[in-house]
Amino acid sequence: MDTLWLVGIGTGSLSHITLEGVKALQQAAVILVPRKGDQKDDLAEIRHRIIEETGSQARIVHFEYPVRDPDLPYQERVKQWHDEIARRWQVAIAGVDITGPVALLVWGDPSLYDSTLRIAERLSPAPQVRVIPGITAIQALTAAHAIPLNTVDGSVMITTGRRLRAEGLPHNAETTVVMLDGLCSFQNLDADGWHIWWGAYLGSDQQILIEGPLADVASQIVETRAAAREQHGWIMDSYILKRR
Amino acid sequence: MDTLWLVGIGTGSLSHITLEGVKALQQAAVILVPRKGDQKDDLAEIRHRIIEETGSQARIVHFEYPVRDPDLPYQERVKQWHDEIARRWQVAIAGVDITGPVALLVWGDPSLYDSTLRIAERLSPAPQVRVIPGITAIQALTAAHAIPLNTVDGSVMITTGRRLRAEGLPHNAETTVVMLDGLCSFQNLDADGWHIWWGAYLGSDQQILIEGPLADVASQIVETRAAAREQHGWIMDSYILKRR
Repeated sequence: MDTLWLVGIGTGSLSHITLEGVKALQQAAVILVPRKGDQKDDLAEIRHRIIEETGSQARIVHFEYPVRDPDLPYQERVKQWHDEIARRWQVAIAGVDITGPVALLVWGDPSLYDSTLRIAERLSPAPQVRVIPGITAIQALTAAHAIPLNTVDGSVMITTGRRLRAEGLPHNAETTVVMLDGLCSFQNLDADGWHIWWGAYLGSDQQILIEGPLADVASQIVETRAAAREQHGWIMDSYILKRR
Repeated sequence: MDTLWLVGIGTGSLSHITLEGVKALQQAAVILVPRKGDQKDDLAEIRHRIIEETGSQARIVHFEYPVRDPDLPYQERVKQWHDEIARRWQVAIAGVDITGPVALLVWGDPSLYDSTLRIAERLSPAPQVRVIPGITAIQALTAAHAIPLNTVDGSVMITTGRRLRAEGLPHNAETTVVMLDGLCSFQNLDADGWHIWWGAYLGSDQQILIEGPLADVASQIVETRAAAREQHGWIMDSYILKRR
């Protein structure tokens, strides 16, 4: 694996990939696709559909994501998980005749709350890595709601559900974006004074949007999220909070 | 103007636009393009080239950006400027027979440090606004340097040069992104302990990248930026700071 291309696929529809991303998928020799055992695997199916729609003739090689060890502290758990994924990439392509770039489709953008660059760093020998940017969930969320992210000359904090629970909302940013929040941590905030823009399955036919004063819509979001997750077997969602 | 489409064009090359963006430009009836009097106008040329490359048959209507009143306080100056641009859009299309959507090409993404959504809000009667997300300078910068934006579970603050000068670096984010900084405000920081990833003309043939410990590369960035701005007549740049 001399050359590794990380292709941001935005929110998982061919129409959200850039022309550069489409071309990279067409030119790749091998594409590594993660797969989840024998479960219903919508996300692998979306990747397969995108690859097919680009007309790519790349050889598809699958690998399975390992399970994270819940007994380890968070940072160590993530580190071991990345180590193991890097090992699985190398096992997966060990017997494959690689005649050109290896590509990975990265949901959103490879820079934002995604592990692929960190996993790639573990490969030995180190491949030449090329990153093709993709639309992040943040852009998809603001586009769906047709709102600006920042206020005029305002700051924006991007954080995680875990950090929000530990630290609360930042005081030095007019806008806060929360990602990776499976626990709807906005429920722990003092709801008065905040407006929320929430979205799930952004950019897809299943897209769900809810916005309003946090005090009014928090429970609606929690219920909608639980029902949608139950229905689809997975959910990807994120939200923006601004002072009212 | 019943329908207004804001199309994020990423870093200004057709290859950085999504397939959805390309299709929107092809389907638009009218495209509004800003123009700067008789100066060398690279940015208008880039927009014209993108429109041409999509094969769009839209009617191109130009408007000129007004000058901001330097005597007004910042927020008021921006507000008046937005009012005046909205007026100029309406004047520009007043005599045009509009048979379909009006589109605007927005550098980067319409949500991030861009005025177009705020200007659109001033239109009366209010058009139906559709936002097509684009690659932001942040994604282009991280892609060019092949780095993740956030650390594992880390927060990211996005701010402006003006805010950085007034407030310094945030203490609650591992990563800071600075945009709209014509004054290289990183020079005012205590340089020890920070690493900087800087980029200008991201994603274009003129792309310039500099990265390193802030103490080592700050003056190189200042000099490179001044020379490039002199050469091209304009510059768009941004940077990321992380604790070392």
